[in-house]
Amino acid sequence: MPFETLSEVRAHGGIQGVYRHDSTATGTPMTVAVFVPQHEPGTRLPVLWYLSGLTCTHANVMDKGEYRAACAEHGIILIAPDTSPRGEAVPDDAAYDFGQGAGFYVDATEAPWAANFRMRTYIEDELPALIAADFPVDIDRQGITGHSMGGHGALTIGLRNPDRFRSVSAFAPIVAPMQVPWGEKALGGYLGPDRAAWREYDACALIADGARVAEMLVDQGDADNFLTGQLRPELLAEACSAAGIDLTLRMQPGYDHSYGFISTFMADHIAWHAARLG
Amino acid sequence: MPFETLSEVRAHGGIQGVYRHDSTATGTPMTVAVFVPQHEPGTRLPVLWYLSGLTCTHANVMDKGEYRAACAEHGIILIAPDTSPRGEAVPDDAAYDFGQGAGFYVDATEAPWAANFRMRTYIEDELPALIAADFPVDIDRQGITGHSMGGHGALTIGLRNPDRFRSVSAFAPIVAPMQVPWGEKALGGYLGPDRAAWREYDACALIADGARVAEMLVDQGDADNFLTGQLRPELLAEACSAAGIDLTLRMQPGYDHSYGFISTFMADHIAWHAARLG
Repeated sequence: MPFETLSEVRAHGGIQGVYRHDSTATGTPMTVAVFVPQHEPGTRLPVLWYLSGLTCTHANVMDKGEYRAACAEHGIILIAPDTSPRGEAVPDDAAYDFGQGAGFYVDATEAPWAANFRMRTYIEDELPALIAADFPVDIDRQGITGHSMGGHGALTIGLRNPDRFRSVSAFAPIVAPMQVPWGEKALGGYLGPDRAAWREYDACALIADGARVAEMLVDQGDADNFLTGQLRPELLAEACSAAGIDLTLRMQPGYDHSYGFISTFMADHIAWHAARLG
Repeated sequence: MPFETLSEVRAHGGIQGVYRHDSTATGTPMTVAVFVPQHEPGTRLPVLWYLSGLTCTHANVMDKGEYRAACAEHGIILIAPDTSPRGEAVPDDAAYDFGQGAGFYVDATEAPWAANFRMRTYIEDELPALIAADFPVDIDRQGITGHSMGGHGALTIGLRNPDRFRSVSAFAPIVAPMQVPWGEKALGGYLGPDRAAWREYDACALIADGARVAEMLVDQGDADNFLTGQLRPELLAEACSAAGIDLTLRMQPGYDHSYGFISTFMADHIAWHAARLG
């Protein structure tokens, strides 16, 4: 078993675990939180991936996300990976929005990041295979969601893998990183100056280039400090409209960018995914 | 207004605030978390006090307690105070179970604690008056709960003030501090060697001495590491049985002492208090 158990706690009838494993994608130990609801032995449950935002680890949503009651109700396993490789041997940057804690779910090609910052491969390929081998998941029923940078991860991974993820949603996602400061810094830093290479990491560009999913659910607080400068959900609305993607974009009055916002709409998202994961 | 706003975030339709004020009881600034659900302007809502356990601040339950959805559903204001005075000028102890973060909801009489460690007066008198003046609370409808050391606080404060608190519950409370190591250390340290002075801070002793409430709800995990050494809920069951107090003591299989346990049963407790607070 590749996973070392760091902690397991009973909650809402299931087990909230935190596990560590060595990742070949990142070349580092990686930590991941997994909630497995109570279930009949031998049954396999659908999976919802939750990708976290800048500065976060696996722990932020585990502590503040309020997802366990809804996951227990719907019988869904929720997996919360870390947002980057970490450790003293891993390159880092003093800024909060680049380096450790800010992997942006890309496979970096630029030095010194390329050796470890391979979060795309980690999330798309390596971790699902490890999870499928050791947890009671039905890997044919996967959904994906995330917040902010993690919403960007959820949208882009979902758009690139419509056969693998049946449902895609996001909380306050970065929808067009090529057009906003967070994204330009990260994509330029990890991928270099050729903007053509950035397009597969930009939800709006992916849609413009032909990527399709049937539908998406996005919640966005209208009191979010990053709304107009970094998130710009109207760009996703335009892209989806042009592409015929059924986007449900809900502007939530008075909500900011915090887990107060996320936790409020978490149960809605889990129910939405559950309806699509069968 | 005595409260300085440290943060206010919209969540579950209401406002989760964190406030600071100068306390005359403790002689220090104190921080308190208050959740006010959405409500009709001019209406006043019942209040549930949540007292936290050893090492906690106002923030632990705010982050991990999962109370906001239920408070919004039932229209209840939840107040989470800190567990002691804090600051460089305040006496402290290197142990986790004494000094700052471990006020035990007593008015200390021993030096050097007596000047600041007056959490009984703070919770029973000072803070309710300040809250009543500045928040939309119906101070005639108060309930109280808490966890571990805070469960001890809830039970003892509720037993001493049956006219003020209509409902009393606890999560994994210390029920007989005079008979367990945490309590003997704290009560001895804050109150001195005369054990007669400890009795008003011991739920079982208070009941033996005639204190009464109509009923109590207590949840306790049976996988709690502190169950047999520090918590001993059977002593509360015996005391309530002898006194004719209607105790609902639920042993919860597989649950430990963490917020995984608390958050699982939080909505139950809020509904239970709501039914009694009208």
